Amino acid sequence: MNGAQSLIRSLADAGVDVCFANPGTSEMHLVAALDQVPEMRAVLCLFEGVVTGAADGYGRMAGRPAVTLLHLGPGLGNGLANLHNARRASTPLVNVVGDNATYHKRLDAPLESDIDSVAATVSGWLRRTAAVDDLAADAADAVAAALSPPGRIATLILPADMSWTDVSWSDLPAAGTGLSGSVDVVEPAPVAGEVVAQTAAVLRSGEPAALLIGGAATRGEGLRAASRIAAATGAKLLCETFPARLERGAGVPEVERLAYLAEAVAGQLAGVRHLVLAGAASPVSFFAYPGVAGDLVPEGCQVHILARGPEDLTRALTDLAERTAAGTAPQLAPPGRPSAPSGPLTAETMAYTVGALLPERAIVVDESNTSGPWLPGATAGAPPHDWLTLTGGAIGQGLPVATGAAVACPDRPVVCLESDGSAMYTISALWTQAHQGLDVTTVVLSNGSYAILNMELRRVGAGEPGPKARELLDLSRPGLDFVSISRGMGVPGERAVTAEEFGAALGRALAEPGPHLIEAVVPPLV
Amino acid sequence: MNGAQSLIRSLADAGVDVCFANPGTSEMHLVAALDQVPEMRAVLCLFEGVVTGAADGYGRMAGRPAVTLLHLGPGLGNGLANLHNARRASTPLVNVVGDNATYHKRLDAPLESDIDSVAATVSGWLRRTAAVDDLAADAADAVAAALSPPGRIATLILPADMSWTDVSWSDLPAAGTGLSGSVDVVEPAPVAGEVVAQTAAVLRSGEPAALLIGGAATRGEGLRAASRIAAATGAKLLCETFPARLERGAGVPEVERLAYLAEAVAGQLAGVRHLVLAGAASPVSFFAYPGVAGDLVPEGCQVHILARGPEDLTRALTDLAERTAAGTAPQLAPPGRPSAPSGPLTAETMAYTVGALLPERAIVVDESNTSGPWLPGATAGAPPHDWLTLTGGAIGQGLPVATGAAVACPDRPVVCLESDGSAMYTISALWTQAHQGLDVTTVVLSNGSYAILNMELRRVGAGEPGPKARELLDLSRPGLDFVSISRGMGVPGERAVTAEEFGAALGRALAEPGPHLIEAVVPPLV
Repeated sequence: MNGAQSLIRSLADAGVDVCFANPGTSEMHLVAALDQVPEMRAVLCLFEGVVTGAADGYGRMAGRPAVTLLHLGPGLGNGLANLHNARRASTPLVNVVGDNATYHKRLDAPLESDIDSVAATVSGWLRRTAAVDDLAADAADAVAAALSPPGRIATLILPADMSWTDVSWSDLPAAGTGLSGSVDVVEPAPVAGEVVAQTAAVLRSGEPAALLIGGAATRGEGLRAASRIAAATGAKLLCETFPARLERGAGVPEVERLAYLAEAVAGQLAGVRHLVLAGAASPVSFFAYPGVAGDLVPEGCQVHILARGPEDLTRALTDLAERTAAGTAPQLAPPGRPSAPSGPLTAETMAYTVGALLPERAIVVDESNTSGPWLPGATAGAPPHDWLTLTGGAIGQGLPVATGAAVACPDRPVVCLESDGSAMYTISALWTQAHQGLDVTTVVLSNGSYAILNMELRRVGAGEPGPKARELLDLSRPGLDFVSISRGMGVPGERAVTAEEFGAALGRALAEPGPHLIEAVVPPLV
Repeated sequence: MNGAQSLIRSLADAGVDVCFANPGTSEMHLVAALDQVPEMRAVLCLFEGVVTGAADGYGRMAGRPAVTLLHLGPGLGNGLANLHNARRASTPLVNVVGDNATYHKRLDAPLESDIDSVAATVSGWLRRTAAVDDLAADAADAVAAALSPPGRIATLILPADMSWTDVSWSDLPAAGTGLSGSVDVVEPAPVAGEVVAQTAAVLRSGEPAALLIGGAATRGEGLRAASRIAAATGAKLLCETFPARLERGAGVPEVERLAYLAEAVAGQLAGVRHLVLAGAASPVSFFAYPGVAGDLVPEGCQVHILARGPEDLTRALTDLAERTAAGTAPQLAPPGRPSAPSGPLTAETMAYTVGALLPERAIVVDESNTSGPWLPGATAGAPPHDWLTLTGGAIGQGLPVATGAAVACPDRPVVCLESDGSAMYTISALWTQAHQGLDVTTVVLSNGSYAILNMELRRVGAGEPGPKARELLDLSRPGLDFVSISRGMGVPGERAVTAEEFGAALGRALAEPGPHLIEAVVPPLV
């Protein structure tokens, strides 16, 4: 039994059974070892940004880590943007980066680079395997670290000789023999009773308050408790701007997302004297703008922290609900779909069409950017679904996250609402969807521009754009033909330019299993 | 005049006049500033790996840096693999990474990350602009650093407020007014006369010797001198395995490239007692293999260093030629093209077709991997051309480098020999080629697999691959239709499955201006 087999076996014993991979020569023993461990599913991605984004989507939906397989520093680099998003999502993720053999590193071969420094920027846990006999424990520790609340990226750097060297102690044992040692998952820290009591007092003070939820509080028991608290105390219920996974739809507690634009947040928080944070960070502007404050807490508003990431957020909210909302029910979204619109396809009619057709138990992956403003309203009363967003702002997240979510939940339809500009960063995710037969419907909102940057160019006060500036935000010369690109990767596609065409195409795509792409041609948001 | 204008103006004054860009909100003032500086050409890329690869290709051909424009840590991450390749190529490159405004960083907004640590892993010079008035000097220093021998990546991290704040000292001056201060380019250090004399003595010793050239010695005067030295002394002339830019073809000194596989290098260096390094590193195995030495210098062979990267390699070689090869001419490749083959399209007939048709002054960008072994022989007598290779082993380099080379040399045809697996990493380079109307002919060698990994899986001793391992190296389910993908990005494409079809398609593509793609369907190398 070699180190690679020990690692894959131990990961499987620790409950990790999906590997998103884009391997190279230094990971070949890991590739070979996958065949020794039947429980481990291997999913090939053609670019590392798809690997890491898929692992993010998987972790958000499965609640446990997938493992990545990346090839040295450049492979990690290619995966870094979506690891950044996963870090911001607090996704549990085990990131395995192959490296040159220990004794080969001093030779400074062409692929040699400083993996550790790059990995440290996104990892909550980082280890370089030092001895082959340690690999089983390294695997268990990595899984435990990934699962430590609220979820972390655990990176294991694996020199090639650690893969191919035999362990000293055993033949390959059967599954479940405890090879991996114990996975010591840290329980979330309890929130002190006084903190809950103080928060209850604040919410009952009669002064205008808002409860801002994030992390685990955007779903399940935590979300229900938060809704009850808001209903009973009159606090405004908000969730973070970019939740990792928000449960919503008919019969699910309704929550308003904090806006992206600072000026809109000012409206949402106007008059609020107490802002209670439950798993969410204090609101800040996504970017800085000249002469505009970045801290979005209104003047005279006090911030109170009920629970932070590593703390038991769900328990804190249920305790708080017990104190403040006994007998109060959560405020559930009523069922109700818009009727399917007709006429020109726009960001608005696109949204209502999605609202009209969104299937039961859908997973919506949302990187719709400027084409998205009507989506929350249009889908609020659709059947219950999960909404996954661009947590870290690094575009190119949608297609990979949709891919991983579909691997995690093969019985649920995935709808990926993707922008044209963002789609191009990680477009090869479509191939993996075809390869794996995943039930993902990708809607590319094609407006032929980096529309958000046209908006931001004005918002930052950079003046009226000249021809060069305009050209740098323009995707229309030549236009991107996503139907052709998609077919080239094995995913059937069609183009829609009216709301009716879009509705028909979306209906067909949702009715058929397997991946589909719809290029929805929409005008830019003015 | 704001900082962004000062930076772009100063870069232009320092001779940098091409900006490969994939900007975001924090770089909007830089985008706007491009319109204030007429000399600066802006080239939009749809993914940062294309930005950095294009800047690498540009720098290799122009001999001076282009500037990149990247959006915060995730943008740098996406560009990191091709920065790694550029670092290994010693390409002069000015890398500008936008960051959150200085006062915004403490708020830990979603895109906040540790840019400095990541940038340090690829940069020979790294600075974070500390004051807007420093930007002109920062620009000059960055260009000087990029040009310092043998060429470096100079990264400037630019907080957004440094872009939009006005400089204190001036309105926007005209070009060439010396705004940027002086660009103090370091001259290459002279190689001591004794070193040249000692090397001459070694080469004249009568013992078997080899001269291994790299860097600037793979072209021009240095290459001619190296060829003369080898001819006069009987030393074997070799160049590094992956030269950044190798001049070759009819009438150019002929040089054999050090092989990729260690066992082949052993043959090339068999019996060599003295290995003289001129701008090349001592040969090492690309990867480690179990039980195989990584240092490829044969036993009993002494290594002598004539010149290292920062030293005046060309001068050292011409001095050495004066001492050892007075009156000896370089060994030039005779003209001669293979006839265009017929029959099935294979890696071999593909190579001979390229050899038959390669146009005058072509720039060949070679990421052909396992489909490439016949190319050097087939093109040795073609008209003089430059050969650009995958210097750092991070795949996804070909299409972007071809894009940048075409921007640098608009009067020369660019032929990009690309593998199917590698093409998928940075495929959106095709869009930039169409957008800019670049004369690039991309040949995608499509064998439906990561063929090199099939080879390496066996070479590393990982045993006979099982079904999961085979699936991770297989690109055929579904097959990638590069003609469709290419058309979707505005580049006309056709598919060739016979040598005749390939020859006809290549002839058409080379005859027409603008970008073309040919999907050359070849069997995997056995």
